[in-house]
Amino acid sequence: MVKKVLKFGGTSVGTTERIQHVASIIKKEKSSGNKIIAIVSAMAGRTNELIGLSGAISNEFNKRELDVLLSSGEQETSALLSGALIQLNIKAKSWLNWQIPILTDGDHTNSRIINMHVEKINKYLDNDGVAIIPGFQGISKSGDITTIGRGGSDATAVAVAKIFNADTCEIYTDVDGVFSTDPNKIPVAKKIDRISYDEMLELSSLGAKVMQSSAVQMAMMYDIPLEVRSTFTERKGTKIFNQENIDYTKSVTGVAYSKDDAKVTIIGVEDKPGVAANIFEPLSKAQINVDMVIQNISSDQKTTDITFTVKRDEVSKTKQILKENTKINYKDIIQNDRVAKVSIVGAGMVTTPGVTYKMFRALSDENINILAISTSEIKLSVIIDENNTLQAIKKLHTIFDLD
Amino acid sequence: MVKKVLKFGGTSVGTTERIQHVASIIKKEKSSGNKIIAIVSAMAGRTNELIGLSGAISNEFNKRELDVLLSSGEQETSALLSGALIQLNIKAKSWLNWQIPILTDGDHTNSRIINMHVEKINKYLDNDGVAIIPGFQGISKSGDITTIGRGGSDATAVAVAKIFNADTCEIYTDVDGVFSTDPNKIPVAKKIDRISYDEMLELSSLGAKVMQSSAVQMAMMYDIPLEVRSTFTERKGTKIFNQENIDYTKSVTGVAYSKDDAKVTIIGVEDKPGVAANIFEPLSKAQINVDMVIQNISSDQKTTDITFTVKRDEVSKTKQILKENTKINYKDIIQNDRVAKVSIVGAGMVTTPGVTYKMFRALSDENINILAISTSEIKLSVIIDENNTLQAIKKLHTIFDLD
Repeated sequence: MVKKVLKFGGTSVGTTERIQHVASIIKKEKSSGNKIIAIVSAMAGRTNELIGLSGAISNEFNKRELDVLLSSGEQETSALLSGALIQLNIKAKSWLNWQIPILTDGDHTNSRIINMHVEKINKYLDNDGVAIIPGFQGISKSGDITTIGRGGSDATAVAVAKIFNADTCEIYTDVDGVFSTDPNKIPVAKKIDRISYDEMLELSSLGAKVMQSSAVQMAMMYDIPLEVRSTFTERKGTKIFNQENIDYTKSVTGVAYSKDDAKVTIIGVEDKPGVAANIFEPLSKAQINVDMVIQNISSDQKTTDITFTVKRDEVSKTKQILKENTKINYKDIIQNDRVAKVSIVGAGMVTTPGVTYKMFRALSDENINILAISTSEIKLSVIIDENNTLQAIKKLHTIFDLD
Repeated sequence: MVKKVLKFGGTSVGTTERIQHVASIIKKEKSSGNKIIAIVSAMAGRTNELIGLSGAISNEFNKRELDVLLSSGEQETSALLSGALIQLNIKAKSWLNWQIPILTDGDHTNSRIINMHVEKINKYLDNDGVAIIPGFQGISKSGDITTIGRGGSDATAVAVAKIFNADTCEIYTDVDGVFSTDPNKIPVAKKIDRISYDEMLELSSLGAKVMQSSAVQMAMMYDIPLEVRSTFTERKGTKIFNQENIDYTKSVTGVAYSKDDAKVTIIGVEDKPGVAANIFEPLSKAQINVDMVIQNISSDQKTTDITFTVKRDEVSKTKQILKENTKINYKDIIQNDRVAKVSIVGAGMVTTPGVTYKMFRALSDENINILAISTSEIKLSVIIDENNTLQAIKKLHTIFDLD
């Protein structure tokens, strides 16, 4: 008998018909003899609707009460899904954050699950019941409702899989799995059958938003095998494992990109210790999310040029903070508001010589100018003119045999 | 320092603007030095929306899960109102059913509040906080969420007022108070300043749906003074007390009516013990709500005629059940589908001679034929042709000095 955690996202439970469909999936899994714990998100759009209500009352709506408000969304779907299962003659029951309970630590709207009581639910599973748990929430030591950040239902699923010692954790969503690149842009994009946690993290942080990154990190930390699959088809999804469990036949697993980026370069900064910290500390304090950072020796070899990317709508704030920063000296600040980051990701890259060269050559063949380069163990990112994004993805997808 | 329970109905918290307005009412009450516990309903329409979702999944949606589902509506408004108060710099906090807890007894969707823990909230009130409690819900001994029936937030308010030993319980709604008759039909209808529990019960059971009847009954049982008032005006509302606290200058307090009634008469029933039970038991089992029942000796003095009223859409079902009833013998069944019940209500009636006569004379002056009569201590109801309803109410309102 296999213990499975199944997580259903907002679009999967977006209407009562879809909730009934989810119930039929669970019924099938149950009939195959599995023990099932299902984690549900709020109905698609509901969380935004609730945030809208709170925003109409205050721009700085009290966070304790925001957690009380938002947690009602998953409570709603938990009840609806349990009712739909009972309608199919499946024994089922919703278990709310305080009924389990799910214990959290940390601040309101940004907590972390630290433990759950398992006895009652394990007994319920042993007695042939399906347990439905609202994602995204728990209760703090002081007995307040706490939520764990947007997309937190993925994290709930992984935490439940760990603490209940489940055999698998399946993330049901509105796509077939993780793709070699964005299937909406590149029709030849292919579903990846098996991928490592690291690759998944690189892909998801680069815009392939199939799963919440912190949930993938948690799964990696506790070595919990994941499967991302579609609620709406019966196709196999993407399995996410430890690297060592994957047999790499390809050097590159996927091509990712991020939009709405801007590149900022500080020219002629003194090349001495502490300069980078002096530059980025005030940006970080102003909540500006700096992505890629590249530092080159400048032509005069006494100063350096530092390039980094930020989201486009944060460029002017970024420049203002740099200009007000009295701790740094530089010649000039230049910016390019219309850039994109395109990355190839693959755990096999590190052992395959020539991947880097192959990427640069391919872009050059397309007459695409590379504005900046950054590399990691399993990723190679370039900044290019935004207009070339699609052309670059297509070319890279082809030359790395992903079509 | 006065401890007040303020209850805000669905229309009072129907939008975020209205929730902000409710927060301003509470702020004013707090600034006057009162201790405040506020009970809130779900936003207008929200409970029906949730019932609609459950109904789309099953006609017999599991009741435990229905309670989990529906209770989320009041959780939502509790959080929104607490946030709105905090925005006005008032210390406030939502207290959910399990956080207090509110203990209930009885079945799902139809429970009764039996107790609440008061220490934590009393301490919070002592420390200058406003406690916001979702109406309509509690938890059972087994730790499940239980709701207490539609309109149950009134009952929560009265129970909180009793258990917290509050000085007053104010029901904020979308009308100015209890009226001498329906102000939408009779423009000269007047707001009643003071009314007894009994009169309120008679009026509300007769269609003046200002407050849930069982909540008024509970207030009567524990002698908790109520005030019904408008959220949207600053006018004084209607105070509801024990009869002995009211100085009656008028014999009649109000004129009520009910619509969509039908009259059914069974002619020539054997006049022997058990007949009424034999007639009404199968109707009750079929969930048919029988209202007025009148029994007359028939002209032959061996049989009797029994007249009763039911809702119009239940007439054919009623007749079918009577016809299939083998325990009763009768000559005929006749019906009148287009009748209305008009009632005068007043605790002063019993001590004022001639009220009955005055009513009958008034209707006669208007050429309105009385089809049936029923009386109680504080109420006198007649069945008349539906077309005469408005004319009858107007006349009675005038002759009993209510204009």
